[in-house]
Amino acid sequence: MAKLYGNAVVGQSGGPTSAINATLAGVINGALAMKREGVIGKLYGMKNGIEGFLEERLVDLTERFDGGKDIPELSLTPAAALGSCRRKLKSPDTDAQTYARILEIFKKYEIRYFFYIGGNDSMDTVNKLSQYAAKNDYEMRVVGVPKTIDNDLMATDHTPGFGSAAKFVATTVKEIKRDISVYTVKAVTIVEIMGRDAGWLTASAALPALTGDAPDLIYLPERTFDMDSFIADLEEKFKEKPALLVAVSEGIRFADGRYVGEGTQSGAVDVFGHKYLAGTGKVLEETVKARLGCKVRSVELSLPQRCAAHVASKSDIDESLLIGESAVRAAVDGKTGVMMTFVRTSDAPYSVEIKSADISGIANEIRTVPDEYINERANGITEAGIAYLKPLICGEPAVKYVDGLPVHIVLDKA
Amino acid sequence: MAKLYGNAVVGQSGGPTSAINATLAGVINGALAMKREGVIGKLYGMKNGIEGFLEERLVDLTERFDGGKDIPELSLTPAAALGSCRRKLKSPDTDAQTYARILEIFKKYEIRYFFYIGGNDSMDTVNKLSQYAAKNDYEMRVVGVPKTIDNDLMATDHTPGFGSAAKFVATTVKEIKRDISVYTVKAVTIVEIMGRDAGWLTASAALPALTGDAPDLIYLPERTFDMDSFIADLEEKFKEKPALLVAVSEGIRFADGRYVGEGTQSGAVDVFGHKYLAGTGKVLEETVKARLGCKVRSVELSLPQRCAAHVASKSDIDESLLIGESAVRAAVDGKTGVMMTFVRTSDAPYSVEIKSADISGIANEIRTVPDEYINERANGITEAGIAYLKPLICGEPAVKYVDGLPVHIVLDKA
Repeated sequence: MAKLYGNAVVGQSGGPTSAINATLAGVINGALAMKREGVIGKLYGMKNGIEGFLEERLVDLTERFDGGKDIPELSLTPAAALGSCRRKLKSPDTDAQTYARILEIFKKYEIRYFFYIGGNDSMDTVNKLSQYAAKNDYEMRVVGVPKTIDNDLMATDHTPGFGSAAKFVATTVKEIKRDISVYTVKAVTIVEIMGRDAGWLTASAALPALTGDAPDLIYLPERTFDMDSFIADLEEKFKEKPALLVAVSEGIRFADGRYVGEGTQSGAVDVFGHKYLAGTGKVLEETVKARLGCKVRSVELSLPQRCAAHVASKSDIDESLLIGESAVRAAVDGKTGVMMTFVRTSDAPYSVEIKSADISGIANEIRTVPDEYINERANGITEAGIAYLKPLICGEPAVKYVDGLPVHIVLDKA
Repeated sequence: MAKLYGNAVVGQSGGPTSAINATLAGVINGALAMKREGVIGKLYGMKNGIEGFLEERLVDLTERFDGGKDIPELSLTPAAALGSCRRKLKSPDTDAQTYARILEIFKKYEIRYFFYIGGNDSMDTVNKLSQYAAKNDYEMRVVGVPKTIDNDLMATDHTPGFGSAAKFVATTVKEIKRDISVYTVKAVTIVEIMGRDAGWLTASAALPALTGDAPDLIYLPERTFDMDSFIADLEEKFKEKPALLVAVSEGIRFADGRYVGEGTQSGAVDVFGHKYLAGTGKVLEETVKARLGCKVRSVELSLPQRCAAHVASKSDIDESLLIGESAVRAAVDGKTGVMMTFVRTSDAPYSVEIKSADISGIANEIRTVPDEYINERANGITEAGIAYLKPLICGEPAVKYVDGLPVHIVLDKA
């Protein structure tokens, strides 16, 4: 295939992760290499994803990171250095104007390569743009690079960003296990973990099992949550020890489909009579307090799950860099309308290959935790699940600290 | 002074920290050295503080850590490896039986050295025990070693455990700053930080100021909190940027003395009509949502503040070890009824000396953040405050990881 000469643009979209900038760094590395080969001219970064692109808010990344300067620090900077957006493109049939504008900017900046790092919605954008470009005879390569702490994208063994989030969760759960084990009084500690539709991140709380430090009970959104069974599970575990640790996904639901976190269990209302959205952990906390009368505490791991880059997984960061670089290589080699993927070839020793998959079958679908990773009582993770998760959190990258705090790269406004 | 020969016992009490085991490791190091000199025989560890001591639940630490084995790993294990308790001894006048029992155990195990690592209540125990032993002509040395993430003990420049908690807070706030800065929509993120009576830990959220990443607003319990001023502060900051970061202490109160976290602002009640204790961050979140109508999120840093040892401060861990060792040396040299202290001799280059102070003036008092560390508008930290805090979070200890997770030392049950 003849080489396609032109400039490139890269964007980040959706919720931040600790590794999304490592993928950006990989795309920069790839573009710098292709620049040396004379194929890609400039690599632009679009600020705030497709939203900023439409306003031509572009930064020249080939100049900013010339010679690979700051690439290691960028790789360990959490959250999207280019900024992000939540905008999902409509179909060209209903919003022709936006697509015409995008094509206009492609032509103005001679952009032939479009890299979009993101989750499900971003892959949808990749899908629509690649189809639109083809239909309008504008030769270009549109490649998606996955990222999400939720690990719920189809066609890939796992997603960049998940391993670091999982390492944060597993590390924090192990440390909390130490903390709650110091007292002899009967107590329940509930850790609420992100993942509304898929329980991958909650499942990773089981990783300290390797040293006997896993939570006593783990509940994923893949299984119906029953409050009576939960209380019965706790009562059984109390026979073994006084301090229990529970990990729950924010997305667990009752049999009737209601989210546990909707708070209808505790029935709390605010001054206006609105249902008080207490959160899953809080609702369980209130219920355990009322029904078992013991000490209870709930801990919501919250935002650090997607930005605690100081405890990133080296495996995740290295792979995120590599998949970004590979995306550029794949595009130059002719791929378009694809998402880059990991294909696992072995658990131990762990090895993956980087490939790509047609984007049309990926966007808008969710990959949940398979049955064989969840125990029969639906309150724990199996050995097979741990074998899958373990390699993804391994290794510690060399985080650079100044004055006791990790160094982050902040890009100028555009 | 003639050397006092005998065995020693060490206990940990109160809430866990990331450095309390480093102090324990220091006491073990000190005891092993004194054992080599023939002064101290065995060092016993009491399980669950004075509570376990009264039940003779003792472990032989000189044997367990013979030759210094596992000391580095113990130093970086969060929470009290010996277990903890919340028991505060009554006065010997009202509870003669307990004291008689303690003396009996001292004699039985030939204990002449008593080391207690803890906060305010623990120092009270040290005070009472040393007085009781003297009154009953039992020659012994009772030495307190401070620990608390709250940094609110009198007579010491800072407390072991604070630096690591402060480093966790500052690191997490810096990472959250990255996270919230990716979008362009108007939003407020509120980070709730531990410290009911003193704002030291909340103040440490200001440390990322050195790279321009401090929260936009910081509120400490040392100042009265006013909701209207808070909203006005936000409105002013919104003139500069869309995404605001706020750090608040869990202990902030209104002018009438009510804790903001009591939730009377939002007025939420549960099914029984009980006031819903939403937490400080949640109450502010609800208020901002109602009054400014923008996106709001609150993040409670919760338990990881006292157990995130993977991001411990090397300065804190090294000092915690040293103060434990020094406690043993001081006791052998004749000190009793004292708490070990840090005396800062210089900010930059940072240096401290380890001394001791009479315990009677220390217990049951609280050291709050001084006026010169809080800005005039009571919504931020001054440069003097940052100069005080900065050296305490510096350096990263070599945490050992296996299978991607930090190694922790767990002591057998006794």
